[in-house]
Parts: sequence; C-alpha cells; structure tokens
Amino acid sequence: MTQSKFKEVDIDPLLSKYQSFLEEHLFPRDLELVTNPFFQSEPLLNELRQKAREQNLFAPHLSEEDGGLGLSLTDFAKVSEVLGQSPLGHYVFNCNAPDIGNMELLHMFGSNEQKEKYLKPLMRGDIRSCFAMTEPEHAGSNPIHMSTTAVQEGNFWVINGHKWFTTSADGAQFTIVMAITNPQAESPYQKASMIIVPLDNPGFINVRNIPIMGEAGEGYLSHSEVKFQDCRVPLDNIIGEPGQGFALAQERLGPGRIHHCMRWIGICERVFDMMCKRAVSRELNPQKPLAEKQTIQHWIAESRASINASRLMVMDTAEKMQRLGAKAAKQEISTIKFFVADVLMKVIDRAVQVHGALGITDDTLLSFWYRHERGARIYDGPDEVHKSSLARSILKKYLHKG
Amino acid sequence: MTQSKFKEVDIDPLLSKYQSFLEEHLFPRDLELVTNPFFQSEPLLNELRQKAREQNLFAPHLSEEDGGLGLSLTDFAKVSEVLGQSPLGHYVFNCNAPDIGNMELLHMFGSNEQKEKYLKPLMRGDIRSCFAMTEPEHAGSNPIHMSTTAVQEGNFWVINGHKWFTTSADGAQFTIVMAITNPQAESPYQKASMIIVPLDNPGFINVRNIPIMGEAGEGYLSHSEVKFQDCRVPLDNIIGEPGQGFALAQERLGPGRIHHCMRWIGICERVFDMMCKRAVSRELNPQKPLAEKQTIQHWIAESRASINASRLMVMDTAEKMQRLGAKAAKQEISTIKFFVADVLMKVIDRAVQVHGALGITDDTLLSFWYRHERGARIYDGPDEVHKSSLARSILKKYLHKG
Amino acid sequence: MTQSKFKEVDIDPLLSKYQSFLEEHLFPRDLELVTNPFFQSEPLLNELRQKAREQNLFAPHLSEEDGGLGLSLTDFAKVSEVLGQSPLGHYVFNCNAPDIGNMELLHMFGSNEQKEKYLKPLMRGDIRSCFAMTEPEHAGSNPIHMSTTAVQEGNFWVINGHKWFTTSADGAQFTIVMAITNPQAESPYQKASMIIVPLDNPGFINVRNIPIMGEAGEGYLSHSEVKFQDCRVPLDNIIGEPGQGFALAQERLGPGRIHHCMRWIGICERVFDMMCKRAVSRELNPQKPLAEKQTIQHWIAESRASINASRLMVMDTAEKMQRLGAKAAKQEISTIKFFVADVLMKVIDRAVQVHGALGITDDTLLSFWYRHERGARIYDGPDEVHKSSLARSILKKYLHKG
Amino acid sequence: MTQSKFKEVDIDPLLSKYQSFLEEHLFPRDLELVTNPFFQSEPLLNELRQKAREQNLFAPHLSEEDGGLGLSLTDFAKVSEVLGQSPLGHYVFNCNAPDIGNMELLHMFGSNEQKEKYLKPLMRGDIRSCFAMTEPEHAGSNPIHMSTTAVQEGNFWVINGHKWFTTSADGAQFTIVMAITNPQAESPYQKASMIIVPLDNPGFINVRNIPIMGEAGEGYLSHSEVKFQDCRVPLDNIIGEPGQGFALAQERLGPGRIHHCMRWIGICERVFDMMCKRAVSRELNPQKPLAEKQTIQHWIAESRASINASRLMVMDTAEKMQRLGAKAAKQEISTIKFFVADVLMKVIDRAVQVHGALGITDDTLLSFWYRHERGARIYDGPDEVHKSSLARSILKKYLHKG
Repeated sequence: MTQSKFKEVDIDPLLSKYQSFLEEHLFPRDLELVTNPFFQSEPLLNELRQKAREQNLFAPHLSEEDGGLGLSLTDFAKVSEVLGQSPLGHYVFNCNAPDIGNMELLHMFGSNEQKEKYLKPLMRGDIRSCFAMTEPEHAGSNPIHMSTTAVQEGNFWVINGHKWFTTSADGAQFTIVMAITNPQAESPYQKASMIIVPLDNPGFINVRNIPIMGEAGEGYLSHSEVKFQDCRVPLDNIIGEPGQGFALAQERLGPGRIHHCMRWIGICERVFDMMCKRAVSRELNPQKPLAEKQTIQHWIAESRASINASRLMVMDTAEKMQRLGAKAAKQEISTIKFFVADVLMKVIDRAVQVHGALGITDDTLLSFWYRHERGARIYDGPDEVHKSSLARSILKKYLHKG
Repeated sequence: MTQSKFKEVDIDPLLSKYQSFLEEHLFPRDLELVTNPFFQSEPLLNELRQKAREQNLFAPHLSEEDGGLGLSLTDFAKVSEVLGQSPLGHYVFNCNAPDIGNMELLHMFGSNEQKEKYLKPLMRGDIRSCFAMTEPEHAGSNPIHMSTTAVQEGNFWVINGHKWFTTSADGAQFTIVMAITNPQAESPYQKASMIIVPLDNPGFINVRNIPIMGEAGEGYLSHSEVKFQDCRVPLDNIIGEPGQGFALAQERLGPGRIHHCMRWIGICERVFDMMCKRAVSRELNPQKPLAEKQTIQHWIAESRASINASRLMVMDTAEKMQRLGAKAAKQEISTIKFFVADVLMKVIDRAVQVHGALGITDDTLLSFWYRHERGARIYDGPDEVHKSSLARSILKKYLHKG
Repeated sequence: MTQSKFKEVDIDPLLSKYQSFLEEHLFPRDLELVTNPFFQSEPLLNELRQKAREQNLFAPHLSEEDGGLGLSLTDFAKVSEVLGQSPLGHYVFNCNAPDIGNMELLHMFGSNEQKEKYLKPLMRGDIRSCFAMTEPEHAGSNPIHMSTTAVQEGNFWVINGHKWFTTSADGAQFTIVMAITNPQAESPYQKASMIIVPLDNPGFINVRNIPIMGEAGEGYLSHSEVKFQDCRVPLDNIIGEPGQGFALAQERLGPGRIHHCMRWIGICERVFDMMCKRAVSRELNPQKPLAEKQTIQHWIAESRASINASRLMVMDTAEKMQRLGAKAAKQEISTIKFFVADVLMKVIDRAVQVHGALGITDDTLLSFWYRHERGARIYDGPDEVHKSSLARSILKKYLHKG
Repeated sequence: MTQSKFKEVDIDPLLSKYQSFLEEHLFPRDLELVTNPFFQSEPLLNELRQKAREQNLFAPHLSEEDGGLGLSLTDFAKVSEVLGQSPLGHYVFNCNAPDIGNMELLHMFGSNEQKEKYLKPLMRGDIRSCFAMTEPEHAGSNPIHMSTTAVQEGNFWVINGHKWFTTSADGAQFTIVMAITNPQAESPYQKASMIIVPLDNPGFINVRNIPIMGEAGEGYLSHSEVKFQDCRVPLDNIIGEPGQGFALAQERLGPGRIHHCMRWIGICERVFDMMCKRAVSRELNPQKPLAEKQTIQHWIAESRASINASRLMVMDTAEKMQRLGAKAAKQEISTIKFFVADVLMKVIDRAVQVHGALGITDDTLLSFWYRHERGARIYDGPDEVHKSSLARSILKKYLHKG
C-alpha cells in the first residue's frame, strides 16, 4: 500500500502534528499505560485513537480511499520515527506491528472476500490480528524448517502445529499462519502457505502469553505460544496460491524492516533526550552535573553520531526500495536491520548507566525498552544471519570475477 | 569474621559438596523459585536451609563457634562462586547480601547487646535484615551527599530521611540506616553514622517494593523505597561511634565486593554452561548445530577467557586482602568491581543471543540475570567511578615523582 | 572556492572518468610510488598531472576561471572519495592537503598580490606549500596555547618559534605560519595571525623530516619539524588582519574535514575491495576460501555497513555546509571527524587480519595506511576533543531549558 | 630445558637485577638501538651481552651446566616479562626468538652431533639461527598445507621450497626448515620433518628482508623471504625421525607461547608507564594535565585491569604446563595467545592516542611496537584460529554428553 500511488505531501508540518500529539497525549502517560495491564489501558487508548481520527492522523500508511494519509514509504518512515518515541505510538495510529504487516499482505494479495472480512475492520482499527510463523522447535533464523502442516481435506485446510512469539494474539480476531502445504515441492521455499485462521476457531489454542523479560503482558502487549489442533478453515482462507508462503513473507518483511528501524530510531531519540536531561540535572556535587563528566559527554556524542548514521541509512534504504523495489534494496535492508538494532541497544544501555539506580527501575521507560527491545537483535533474523547474508551477497560478485 | 582466625580446610571436597547440593536441590527448581512470589517459595527455601544445616554446609562464612565453617576469605570466595550459580544459592546457605554484610559489620563493630539481639538470630537464619544507604535525591556514586539525618533527642536518635534500594526490606526485622549525625564534622566522611532500626518502628515506612526491570518482587527478592519519619530509636542503636559511618561502610564493602564478584563468576559459569548446551543441541539445519558457527565458537572462547581472567583476578585480590588487609588491596578491589561486572553482562548477553527467542523469555534464568544483574555495573559504585578512582590512585605515584 | 558560484555538473560520468584514470594510472603503481623516495617518484607524478590536465580533470576544486572544474562542495566530496582510493590520488589532481587548504585560504582572504605570487602557481601545480601550526611543546588539541610569536619591527614581522607536523615542508616554496601577533588581545582566539613565509628565507630552518611510523619520507610525503629564528618577512605577508588567525583557521578546517573524511572513505573502499578479493582467493583448505568463514563474513558486513554510514553522514554534512555555511554544520563536522576516523582504522585493521602475514608486509598498501592513517584520530583535533565538543554543544540547549 | 630439573631460586631479587640492568643499560638507548641498522647496533649489543654474562644473568632459560640459570618455566616467565620491556631485552640475554625455540628443540630432540655443532654455539651466543616454516602460498593458520619438500637422494636431503617470515635469517648461521618428507603418510600431521640447513649452503637463497610495516630491518631485526633450490644437506641433519615435524613443532610452540605472552606483558608495562608519565606531564591548559581527563583515567584503569588479568592467566598457564605438561594446558595456551595479543594492541593504541602527535612519530618506542606487534594477532596462529580451537575443545565435552 505504501509503495504505490502515494501522494506528494508536505511532510514537515505533518511530522510536527504527530510530534505535538505525542507530546500532549502520550508522553505524559505512556509509562503508566504500558505498565498497567493492557486491557485496563485499552479504553484510554481507544479515546486516543478517536482523537487521531479526528485530527486526520489515523493510519498514515493507508491510502486515502482506505481512510489513511496515502504516504509514500519514505514519508511514512519519517512518521514512524516520530511514533516510535512512545511504545504506544504506532498502536494509537493503527500502524502497529503485526497489524500493519497483515494489512500490507492482505492489501496486496488478499482476495476481495478476505479484504472485506479481514482487511477492512483492521484498517478501521475495529479488530486486531496476529501472525503465527516461528516455532519453538526450530531455529527462527532458518524458517524453512517448519513442522506446522495444513492438509487439504475436502473444502478445508486441516492445520496442526505449534507456534510461539505470535505477537498480540491475546484478544486478536484472526491470525495468519504459516504452514507446510506442499511438502513435495522441490524448493524448501515453495512448501509453505499463509492461511487465515479466525481465533474463535476451536482448533486454535492460545497456550499462554509467554512471560518475556519479566512480564507476560496481555492483549496487544503480549506474545503467545499457540497450538493448532486439527484446526479446520475453509480452503479459500489461503492468501495467494499454495506454496507462496515464503514469497509473500518476503514482501511483508521488506517494508516491515523499514518501519521497525524507524521505530527504533524514534526510541533512540526519546532515550537520547532522557539521557541529556538526566546529564544536566543530576548533580554529583553541588553545581557539578553529570554533564561535565567526559565519559557522559562521549556517550552522548557517540549516541548522536550513531543515531544520525542510522537514520540516514534507513532513509536511504527506504528511498531505494521506493524507487527500485524491495529486491534491489536487499543488501541495504539486511544492513539496517543489524546496524540499527545494535545502535538501539547501545543507546539504551548508555542511558540506563547515566540514570544510575533509577535506570534499572520501572520508574522510567528505559527498563521497558532495555528489556523488550533486546529482541530486536533476534527477531526478523538475528544479527548474525543478516551479516552473513550481506557478506555472501557482496562476495558473490568477487567469486564470479575470479 | 572471614578475615581472622580461619581454619585450614581441604577446600575441594567441600566445594564438591556444595556443587552436589546445588545440582540436586536448586538447579532443578531455582527458575520456578525465583519466578514465583518469594513468600510462596519461602517454605521450600526453609526446608533447603534445614538440609544445608544438616549437611553442615550452612553459613560458611561464619566462624565455627558461630555455627559456620570458619572459612578464610579465599576459601569462602570459592564457595561463593559455587553458590552464585543459582540466584538462591547464597540465600539457602544464609550468606546472602545484604545479611552477610550486616553480619560482618555487627560481628566486628557491634556491641554485645547488638550482637545478642540482632547478630545471633541473623546468623541462625531466623530473621532477615537490610541496609538503607542510597537516597533517590543524591547520586549513589558520591554517597557523601546525603539528606537523611539522625538527631539526638534525649535518649533517642530521631531519624528523618528518604532512602531507596533498601534491598530485602520487605519482611526484614531490622535495617541499618546511614544518617548524618555530625553535620559539623570537618570531613564529609565523618558526618554520618550507622544506626539500627527495627522495622516494626512506627517511624519506618516501607513506601513500596520498587518495580525493577519488570518486577517489584517481594521479600528477599525485593528492593524497597523507604521513609524514616521522626523515627525514634535508642541511642545505643548506633554501631560504633558517631561519625564512623563511612569508615564502617568501607569495611563492609571490601569483602562484600569479593563475595559479589565471585557470585557473578558463578552466574557466568552457569550461563556459560547453558550457552554451550544450547550450541550443541540447537540445529540450524539437520545435523548442523549452532556450535559449528564460528561466531558462536568465538563467543564461547571469549567468554571462557574472560571468566577465567575474572576468577584469577578476584582470587588474587582476596588473597591479597586476606594477607594485607582491605586497604592494601584497594586498587585491586576497584579493578575487579568494574572488570567482572563487564564480563558478567557480556557473557549473559552472548548467551541470550545464542538462545535466540528462547533467550528473551522467562523460560530460562537468562532473562532473570539479564535484567537483575544490569545493576552490577551501577551499585556499590558505577564502573565509571571505580575506573577513575583506580586511575587516580595509580597516577598519584607519577605525580609525586615529577 | 568550492563554496560559491559552482556550476551544476552531471557528476556520475565525471566520477567514472576519475575512477578510470585511477584504475589505469595509479592502482598499478601507487604502492611502488609511495614506497620509493618521493623525489624519485616525482617525475612520473608530474607526467600523471599532465595527463590529468589534458583530460580536463585537474584541480577539480577550483573554479573554471582558475583552471578547475568549478565543482560544488558536495560534488567535489564525491570526487575526493574516488581520489582517496590511492595515496597519491589527490596529489595527482592538485587537490591534496595541505595545498588545497592553503588555496582555499588565499582564495578567500589573500590580497591581490598574495594571490598573484602564491595562489596562482599553487593552482597551476607549479609549486607546493605547507602550513605550520602545531607546536611540540603544546597540546595540538588546544591550539590557543602557542609559543611562536611574530613581532612587528619596522616593515617586517620577526618570527620566532618551533613547529612540527608541518606537512610537506620538504621541497615546498612557502609556508603559512600561525604566530602570536596580538598577545594582549582579550580573547585567546584573537591573539594569533597567519603569515606567509617563503621557505628560502634564512630564518626558516627545516630541522628534520620527522620519522613517523617507521619512515621519515621526503617531499610531499613528509612531515617536518621546523624552526623560525628571527625570521623576517614583509608586513604584508599577513593574511587578513592581525588577530584573525584562528578565525581563518576555522574557515580552512570546515571544508578540509569534508575532504579528509571523503578521502578516508576512498581508502576504506579500496581496502574493502582488497579484503573481499583476499577472502575469495585465499584458501584455508583446498576449495575452502576464507570467505566461507563466518568471522570474515561479519567483518565484511560490518565494514560495509559502517562505510555506507560514513558516506551518508559526510555527504549530508557537506550538503548542509553548502546550503547553510560551515557554522551551521559545526556539530555535524565534529561528528564525521571522529566517526569516520574510527571506521577507517577498524576497516584497515580487519583487512590486515584477513591478509594474515601479508597484511603486515609492505607488499600491499595496507601497511602504508595502517601506519599513516593512525594519525587520523589525532590531527585536526583528536577524537576525544570532538566528542566532548559535540556533546557540550548538544547539552547547551538542555542547560538553557532548565 | 626449562621444563625439567630446574632449581628453586629466590626469584624476586633476580627479577630486580634484571630490572636494574634494563633500566641502566637498555631503556636509555633501546629506541636508538632499534632505530639504527642492526649491524651498526650489534657491537654495543655484544658489549651488553658480555655485561650480562659477567653479572651471571645470561641465558636464564638454560640449565646451569649449559651456562644458564636453570630457571623453571614459571620463573623464566617472570624474567621474560622484565626483558620484554625493551625490544632488545631478550636478545641481550640470549633468550630471544627464534633462537630460544631452536635451543629448546635441539636440547630435547637433537642428536649429540647436532648439539655439539649447533646447540652449543647458540647457547653461548656465538651464532644466531632461524626457523623456516611459513610459506607465502599457503595460509599460515593451517600449516598442514605446505609445498616445500625434502627428498632423500643418497646420503642427502634435497630440499626445494619457498618460505617467508623466516625471522632473523639475515646473518644467521643455520635454519631449521620444515619440509614434506613423507608425502604418503596417512595423517597430514605426519608428513613433514625438521631439517637443519647451514645458511652458507649454496641451495639456500635469502631473497630479501621483507619490508614490514615500513622497514625491512636487518640482522636479528628482520624477517626474510627465502628459497631452497636443490638445497642438499646430509641425512642426519634431520631432527628426530622423518614425519615428526609437526609433533616437534608443537613441543616448540608450547613454552614459546608463554615466552611471547610474557614478553607482550613486558611491553604493556613499559607502554603503560609511558602513558602514565605522559598523562601527568602533558598539559591541556596550564596546571591541567591530561591525567585529569576522565577518558584518560578510564584508559589507564582498563589497561591496568587487562594487563593484570593477562599476567595472572599466563602465569597460571605456565604453572599448569610445568606441573602437567603442555598437552594438559592446551586450552589455556590458546586462551592466552589471543587474550594477551588483544590486550597488547589495545594498550599500545591507547598510549599512542594519549601521546597525540608524538605517539605516531618514531621519537618514542610506541611506533615500533604499534607496527611490529600487530603481527602478534597473526603469527603462531591468528586469534580466530585459537578461538575456534578453544571453543571446539570445550564443546567436545558437551557433544559427548548428549
């Protein structure tokens, strides 16, 4: 959706609007909102979503006919950074993972019926969804190994399997599940399909909200372990053709990584701001703030440098992807994934240290991000996989020269 | 206590006994024990403490007449590493912080009455205690700035102040509080005193168990914010003389840092073991375990090297401290504090990465340590303070040459 | 010169021309050219300069009326990267430090007579020049401390002082020297002036070509220790007004840092190319090239990422400087200085390691850069100074908020 | 020799003697001695060797009957650290690589005739020797791939091959060369032999002293590229049995790594001392020495910590090797190789930065070590090989459990 037929907008005033919205409505209470149980926070979040609609800021990634702002990938990237400053920024504007990825998928590859039934309420923010891919028994870094199967029986897919890290399953209306449908296909990349499963299906079991880094969370802020036990859904719940699962996943991941990376940069900026505020206000001795310490200064300088580098790289990648397509930007996408995730964790870690004891409490957002963004170096492919993949892609040219 | 009149023991068989105890009684359930609320785990922990007494393994740091094993500082250091492998190791053997520090303090500087009333039940493991020093309004790294005061009124100290990170206050019987008693003293290091406050005193308020890295915890596994409001305790609740607070704190910290560092090394070893097990068992492709990846190999090698280096340094420091006293080993104590804390966090971080998605769940102990040991680089003096202090001490000699 | 009245050019074809020139004329022999004594290499270098003139590639930074290409700062930055791939790239095209800085200075602030006498032959490549600022007795990182003085006596400046790291003095026709002329000025930044000294002046002594990292070098490839002993030059040899030395130096440094950083990126690219070639060609076992090792892959990936980040940051800074002036880009200039110097040294170090024993020989350019670019983290302000300066500039805003 | 039948000595007074010798005779002139051509420095070095003999400090690694001090491996390790403080320390006391390794080899495995002819003059310091193993065409990290052959023809070995990094060949009397003698052997580790070749043999060609990091050096301070062209030596020039080459090399390397690592620690200590002296003496502003900068303090602290860690690890390894043999200490030997080499390069790099521009000149020893110790991470097995080897050795136990 973001990739095509976007309109030219004057992005800076729009970014200011988002910034003001966050500063007014989210920054003063987002720590409390993510600390409280999600279902308790939900009514207030719904109010904020309504405000967002009223201010015409809702669903910036959607085309105008779909109720969005019709932003290009690069413009949405900039919005995504602003929203990333709050852990609930994307949620309030209905462009949060995993819903945004599912919207992109259904928009591009869904049947008309699927769009009507699943995409539209998702775009309106009436329901939530999830995406079941990773399996505890297999390394997520090599997703071709998968045990979940979907077997055709009459007019139904019968799905059996075990997934986890099905983000936001708790309270979602449907999931898209990745399952082996074509076990005989020659290429391992052509064995799987994506199938829509409504979560009220009796064959779907939410085993648990996995406790992650000290909290199981709930609702949008949870990651489930789930099971599919003889879970039957109509044949036309498949997205695209049987065997297209990995191809579609690839399409889903490309812009997804841009969104993630810009969100991370948003986190970096908020954390950087907290670090600077702390540095000037915390005194080691009367009139001797932390800010006078050279180590603190260097952390601030190194953080600034690496955040700036990150933004330039992600925007450059977004621009290339917008111009030439996700395939042409494959190397860049791998690059930003590991580069920005590393910057993110380092900036957070420095900010924790600058805050001292306060930094490890839940009295600031630092602890939330320190814990919940550690996954950034793991999900969507761990650092190590992206680095090797980038290098192999670079070295291919050298091999063919010789 | 550990510093004097210890007996020569054959330490290796003793270490094996501790190791066996942990492997049998703690490793199979310590994850569950620290995940459940502490007061729910407490009965089982009491049983384990009883087992420890029966096997004559209880309170290894205490002299034999006090019901302990009479270990030297170096021997206890080795035991401390073994116990450190479990988050509850030290607790089960009643040599856990903050109680062990309080025991050392009362043993060396307590009056007979204080020993009878506070030290003995502590040594028996009948009660728990805490230590109130850090204040939210002042940088913990420069403890001379302190607002808590104890003013003499008749036969009482009247204490007013605000503290936090009063570890294990929840359920403790008493705290030792650091308070300004001699505001007119010339040296800022002679203004404060240590005073015992029973926690049932109406002037003591446990404001909250501070939520830290996602959990507030309870009981032994908590860190409180507390207030002293016109809190009156008898004059002879002071430990040592008025104004000796920092001097005593220094004594308390020396061996305390050895204990901490060896505990961290114990954590490193357990985490290292988990990392290796994961490396050989997790397959990226059939028959291709993670262990074949060079990056994983290098993390294992670098972890092994730095854990070994840590142990040699801490044992060398303990030996020096035992032989020449804490003052003579001041440089070494600063060194191990920042060196081992850094190794600890790096080893944990690598293990998390090797475990992939599993590493960020609470299904292993990695998440517990990743979160709760982040403070290791902050408490008892942040890295930056210890590094500067070490350097200044080294450079002093050079300055006096010139 | 580069900052104003540049013309719009189609930069990509021009970059290709430079690239072809380097690949044809420099890459095959630059190792030999920098290994041999400079004055032995000079005739061949003069031939190459002639070729450059013939192909209309000479002095790309100069305006067309001055015999150059009239490139903008950003376009010249791109050229500078290409030229940086060879240690002699900038020299061949007469846009090498320190001459380029001196040309910029004289162009902007020189009198007509100075331009005629010094700038023009410099622009034609007929002579070389140098710049005498750093003094061995004072920390280069804080240049306000300076012992060299220029005292007015009649119609002459009488200069006395001791300088070093006067790059390329050996064989140069003149130097610009920084000397205290206004010792009574209130601000330390208004005490010094820049004065032109022809090197055949008897008061100028080239003490030695300083041996640096194993070689003293000669000619363009040298750094001199020099003395000014009652060195008399006419009063109008001053550039600008007395006391403007630091102000002019600042002007000289801004674009200079862009040139340096892009040159470093050029080095990175050549080194990266060498590393990749080595990785695919060096076998550890038959058919098992280094390129299959994950560590090598990760070094390649991390190098690629950080080189790309560097280029985006420098180009972004150049663009800002071009649009808003050097002052507006002050933070960015500090940032690229320490960021790119760090990337440079890391990429070189990895390439050395990938080359094994060959990497430490002088049989490749790696050793030349490993040794001679170590200074990149020191000259024009060491990393530490730039980081602190950036941080203080950032924190200023925070201080004024509170 | 060091491994067996050593005598108990009171090591501390001996270390003081060596320290005094170095401070008196080497520190004041070693920079000059290594900067001048070796054959020019040699007469003075011979005088120093004579002084060493007179003070009974010569050849500390040799048994007393061989004219040495009969030190144990651990005691010699301590001496080696002291000597390492000067680039010529080991040379002056005749315990320098490669001679010391050759002495150890001939002592343990040489025939009586070989001992008479080669070992004795070597032990007396009358001649020098070298060791030809690494080949430019093969990765040194996997030495089983080797092209040099020695074929038996009548009573001679006929050797053909190409070697480099034959350290100190220039001016040496003989080399030990590693050559394939048993190409049909089943194991690649049983194909090679060590053969003694006098360098006046017409079949031996010293192609060049390889220019390394800016200087080719000469004599002891050189590394040659050499060729063996139908080089004929008597059959009994073989050391041990045909096919034992790698087995003997392993024996040679074990203690060799201890010597190297302690030498590196000696370098670290001298460099650390230079760094501290610079920090207190270099002023950024009047009365404001570098030593007050927190970054400098942290570098000093981190250097101190890591040097201490290095020493403890190497001494621990030496002690284990002495007690249980080189095989038992295999993991530790790999560990110290990469750990200490890394510490060494980091300490040198920090000292260069603290020295600013001076640090990159040849006016201090920093440049010599920065350049010539870069090889420490490469020779005797690059870091990466040792790390993988250590990890595989650790993981073997885990694999066999499962």
